[in-house]
Amino acid sequence: MGLEKDCKLNLHSKFEKGPRNLITDVAGVKVGHVTLQSEDHNVNTGVTAILPHSGNCFREKLFAGAAIINGFGKTTGLVQMDELGTLESPIVMTNTLSVGTALTASVKYMLAQNPEIGVQTGTVNCVVTECNDGEINDIRGLHVTEGHVLQALKNAENCDGTFEEGAVGSGTGMEMMGLKGGIGSASRVLTIGGRKFTIGALVMTNYGTDDNLVIGGDFIGRRIDAERKKEDKGSCIMIIATDIPLRDRQLRRVASRTAHALARTGSYSGNGSGDLAIAFSTANKVEHFNETPFKSYEFLYDDNISSTFEAAVECVEEALISSIYHAKHTLGVRGRDEKCLQEFLHLYEG
Amino acid sequence: MGLEKDCKLNLHSKFEKGPRNLITDVAGVKVGHVTLQSEDHNVNTGVTAILPHSGNCFREKLFAGAAIINGFGKTTGLVQMDELGTLESPIVMTNTLSVGTALTASVKYMLAQNPEIGVQTGTVNCVVTECNDGEINDIRGLHVTEGHVLQALKNAENCDGTFEEGAVGSGTGMEMMGLKGGIGSASRVLTIGGRKFTIGALVMTNYGTDDNLVIGGDFIGRRIDAERKKEDKGSCIMIIATDIPLRDRQLRRVASRTAHALARTGSYSGNGSGDLAIAFSTANKVEHFNETPFKSYEFLYDDNISSTFEAAVECVEEALISSIYHAKHTLGVRGRDEKCLQEFLHLYEG
Amino acid sequence: MGLEKDCKLNLHSKFEKGPRNLITDVAGVKVGHVTLQSEDHNVNTGVTAILPHSGNCFREKLFAGAAIINGFGKTTGLVQMDELGTLESPIVMTNTLSVGTALTASVKYMLAQNPEIGVQTGTVNCVVTECNDGEINDIRGLHVTEGHVLQALKNAENCDGTFEEGAVGSGTGMEMMGLKGGIGSASRVLTIGGRKFTIGALVMTNYGTDDNLVIGGDFIGRRIDAERKKEDKGSCIMIIATDIPLRDRQLRRVASRTAHALARTGSYSGNGSGDLAIAFSTANKVEHFNETPFKSYEFLYDDNISSTFEAAVECVEEALISSIYHAKHTLGVRGRDEKCLQEFLHLYEG
Amino acid sequence: MGLEKDCKLNLHSKFEKGPRNLITDVAGVKVGHVTLQSEDHNVNTGVTAILPHSGNCFREKLFAGAAIINGFGKTTGLVQMDELGTLESPIVMTNTLSVGTALTASVKYMLAQNPEIGVQTGTVNCVVTECNDGEINDIRGLHVTEGHVLQALKNAENCDGTFEEGAVGSGTGMEMMGLKGGIGSASRVLTIGGRKFTIGALVMTNYGTDDNLVIGGDFIGRRIDAERKKEDKGSCIMIIATDIPLRDRQLRRVASRTAHALARTGSYSGNGSGDLAIAFSTANKVEHFNETPFKSYEFLYDDNISSTFEAAVECVEEALISSIYHAKHTLGVRGRDEKCLQEFLHLYEG
Repeated sequence: MGLEKDCKLNLHSKFEKGPRNLITDVAGVKVGHVTLQSEDHNVNTGVTAILPHSGNCFREKLFAGAAIINGFGKTTGLVQMDELGTLESPIVMTNTLSVGTALTASVKYMLAQNPEIGVQTGTVNCVVTECNDGEINDIRGLHVTEGHVLQALKNAENCDGTFEEGAVGSGTGMEMMGLKGGIGSASRVLTIGGRKFTIGALVMTNYGTDDNLVIGGDFIGRRIDAERKKEDKGSCIMIIATDIPLRDRQLRRVASRTAHALARTGSYSGNGSGDLAIAFSTANKVEHFNETPFKSYEFLYDDNISSTFEAAVECVEEALISSIYHAKHTLGVRGRDEKCLQEFLHLYEG
Repeated sequence: MGLEKDCKLNLHSKFEKGPRNLITDVAGVKVGHVTLQSEDHNVNTGVTAILPHSGNCFREKLFAGAAIINGFGKTTGLVQMDELGTLESPIVMTNTLSVGTALTASVKYMLAQNPEIGVQTGTVNCVVTECNDGEINDIRGLHVTEGHVLQALKNAENCDGTFEEGAVGSGTGMEMMGLKGGIGSASRVLTIGGRKFTIGALVMTNYGTDDNLVIGGDFIGRRIDAERKKEDKGSCIMIIATDIPLRDRQLRRVASRTAHALARTGSYSGNGSGDLAIAFSTANKVEHFNETPFKSYEFLYDDNISSTFEAAVECVEEALISSIYHAKHTLGVRGRDEKCLQEFLHLYEG
Repeated sequence: MGLEKDCKLNLHSKFEKGPRNLITDVAGVKVGHVTLQSEDHNVNTGVTAILPHSGNCFREKLFAGAAIINGFGKTTGLVQMDELGTLESPIVMTNTLSVGTALTASVKYMLAQNPEIGVQTGTVNCVVTECNDGEINDIRGLHVTEGHVLQALKNAENCDGTFEEGAVGSGTGMEMMGLKGGIGSASRVLTIGGRKFTIGALVMTNYGTDDNLVIGGDFIGRRIDAERKKEDKGSCIMIIATDIPLRDRQLRRVASRTAHALARTGSYSGNGSGDLAIAFSTANKVEHFNETPFKSYEFLYDDNISSTFEAAVECVEEALISSIYHAKHTLGVRGRDEKCLQEFLHLYEG
Repeated sequence: MGLEKDCKLNLHSKFEKGPRNLITDVAGVKVGHVTLQSEDHNVNTGVTAILPHSGNCFREKLFAGAAIINGFGKTTGLVQMDELGTLESPIVMTNTLSVGTALTASVKYMLAQNPEIGVQTGTVNCVVTECNDGEINDIRGLHVTEGHVLQALKNAENCDGTFEEGAVGSGTGMEMMGLKGGIGSASRVLTIGGRKFTIGALVMTNYGTDDNLVIGGDFIGRRIDAERKKEDKGSCIMIIATDIPLRDRQLRRVASRTAHALARTGSYSGNGSGDLAIAFSTANKVEHFNETPFKSYEFLYDDNISSTFEAAVECVEEALISSIYHAKHTLGVRGRDEKCLQEFLHLYEG
């Protein structure tokens, strides 16, 4: 739900928020979590899955583009997305060392849906993204199983349009700017040429140096006295969905504006911060089995794309802040005690 | 000189400013302007030249890297810089339609210095950057001549370490966020491994939607009642110099952090904004005529590069704001009357 | 005309050749040359201009994509082409040090056609490509004038569909594989989904080590006893035009297959060889002044693009060989005596 | 061993072959296979592992660069390699749908060697490459286990400098140009500045349209009457190792020349062919735990790199051909009967 209307945090919206203020405001997008937490606090990890549309992702691919803000990361699937400009799988998020498990589970999920893969047709390109939750989670324990990934995908299928934000799913063990991070989401509605469109973001936040946190222009990080990290490592994964008819190159352009959103929250994308974004559009489908070699697609002119850029920046910024707004105080591995933004809201001036 | 110490604008510096707070704090870097303004206000353009070191740029190349934040621009020389990771010419800035003239003049400047070019050895890759000053300048008039470019280069040779900022040189006709833009500069000093280094920036600002201007977290753009542009076009060129021993790939990483600096000032890099950055290091030279095929270079580990990123963001942010801080009210072509930041400083809360 | 049917050189065509076997077989594409040669043989240079379609290139842009095979080159216009995926100017070819002049002339040509540039709308992105003809031409003399460039553009406007190949236009002073190089062209016709399309190439050849020349699988370079170059420098510019409805990303994919064509002729793209390709499609127009923000475009599925790749490789390979097949023995600067392929055809076994 | 000296196939070597004519001629490089074949011929797959040097890859990283010739592929680890220019893991090869399993096993292998990963330091970036062996192998069966991957790594550790080529390891189920493909390798020795260096290649071949096969300029594919594939799908992974002191950007340049090697064998990199290359140099180590922030590295000048390019092309070409030279007739899933080059050598004219 992003930030509530009566929330003290003011991000100065120019654009109207979507009805749920979540990425699921883009019709067809669904989200599911599996959260893993052990009683001894050693395990704090999970899986978050995004279904890009309600049909078969492999048979009906979407145009997509990725932007690498800082490539210190282990996301899979971007080589082919860059070559073909399409997304043909769910987007799964998990911790860095569980990417292989999530990839295998994603492949099995796609094989089950598409008996033709590997027989009558080629293979499938699955997108798995990650952040390193090793500060709070026993990441070496590899606690995420294929079953957890398949369950998150199942939960996404059953998504009724809402989902939790904060320290849930793959965001369970994440940390942002010295506070408890996690999953955040927001959406915006904009009108182009008299037609109404939605753009939504879902982010997994695990970045930043604590005293750098900025919320709506307020340098609140300097007033927060939480445990200090030595350096800016961690990462941020930012997923943008929209029903604006954009093609791959335009979506890469939209994705690259997440650098601006990160900067609004105080990030300078430190060396170890694997910051990257994927944007996709649900407006056009690219069939895997095409009957004729040609197809017509409607696209926005680049000349009319600036408001999309601005709405994307605004929406991703809110999703980033929403992740720490919703994340709760968490105890972690090796005695880690991670405070949350709610404990410091009295410092907020905005 | 960037922003003065007692300036009302507060950008919250973490890093120490260089002695001049200019890109010329990086030893060997020199800057020269030629400003063209006609009495009838139709001509408002010029040339700014940066000499990357005090020797022969062609025979002693520098490691360099560029980042395209938004490639709606006409800069020359980046194809080869990307392939070889070196800079072998001055960096010349001018208006968009005068790039050809500036390129020819740059070539002549290099030919005069290097009689071997085109005879005993290959050609030379000259870097010319640009922004479109057509809102304030009669850009179709092509008022920049080769002589002006050569004079700017001569002025750079004679630079004593200081140079003007604001509506001068290639910044004469630029506009930023609905206010008079131009040339800005700043520098920072930082210590890595007990050694002191300098990083400096020089920017040419011609970007942004006016009501979006942010200075140090203050959304001052919303309180400024200047003439409104319809959309975010224009561009921003950002040059970063340093004596930190970085190689090409690392310099590209530094250059890419200018997206974060732009965002701190309120930009979202609109469609027509050709925002790009070039970073170079004076620490190592790459000889054109090498006597042996191998050479040793000292480099910073990437693991120690985060403070460089943060200093670069801070320094470029100040240079951007400094450009409008120094630019004066300007009358332009077709009756254009461009107000300047100084006229609105009473609105500043920061 | 590419290689004549009864030519001894056999490149094993799979695809049907176009009626003229020239890039101008793609409807609307026109080519013009200006050749500069002095009686004392010091000047051997020129200009070749390609008009991508018969209308106004600025107001009706084409989808385009470039591939940098080896970026040791000084081509202008590729930053914006990569960002927007469009071509909005003629493609001008000349020698490396005359790129600035050609750029200024191209800008003037576009300003004359479009009075709105720089006033009611933004600027224009002109593409100028180059090779270094300094081995045969007094390249330091900068003998190409703006007038020559405008004349080449005028000659292109008046093109009746045929044009000369070999040591003409910008190819006048070029050298390929130790033989006289220059301009080459070829075309292919292919059928996709029952519809007939044309793909054409025009190349400027200035690359390769002489003994490496391969023609149709025959290592003829080893049997040619021409003057030997010490190393592989020089460059190769390859332009591909087609009426197949491809978009920017697909055109970049087509352009990248020129590496395969170069390799078929014996090139390994030596360090100093600025090998790059630009591909554009005439099938869709992208209007500069769009009345509505959306437009529908027909595109080929990537799944059906392989024959386009193969035809492009075949066509570019023939254009490369055609450039040396047509280039005549040339005397050059500093006593250079450049032999041509025709003098060695008796060695050909193929 | 690449091609034997008395082999009928003549690839016209310019460079001296290494003592074993294998990638393991580069000191420290080791290779291990695990081959999986079932008696019912349904399973034809496996794993091949390359250890880039004999020490700890994570603590002593190597400079590396990748080139995407055609990005229709699912390789992991390239995002970070592109950002940091280093390789910090073995390179594992397997079939496309087993990449997740190979990634998890690689992570476990690295965790076992480095107890600090995920606790005192960050995570690890593992490189897994793939081709689709679904034509010959029951790829949907996911027959590769983590144990197989760990065994291939173990076999690599025990490598005595030689290893099998052909239909072994990850090459067991591959197909090239309508013939049985697999693993190939070759090496070259070259002298630069009086110092002797080695460059070696290992390839996994699964590409090409059968009638396009070219060996040493001979279009033998046209004379081979094997079962015809409908289109050029499949892929090719090409790994280049060298002890020449090259840095990341230079290694990317070397890797990009694999396009030329592919072309020499008749490939045009069809739409579905995920052709990519990774090159690494053993000459410099980049420590994970650096004691001081700076380090000196020796590098080759780009001006002296052309012979490295040419040797790389020659070496990769031989490795490609060697893969089919050594691969044996194989029976596969769904009754597939894959002939091998040895059955057609009588057709060879070269």
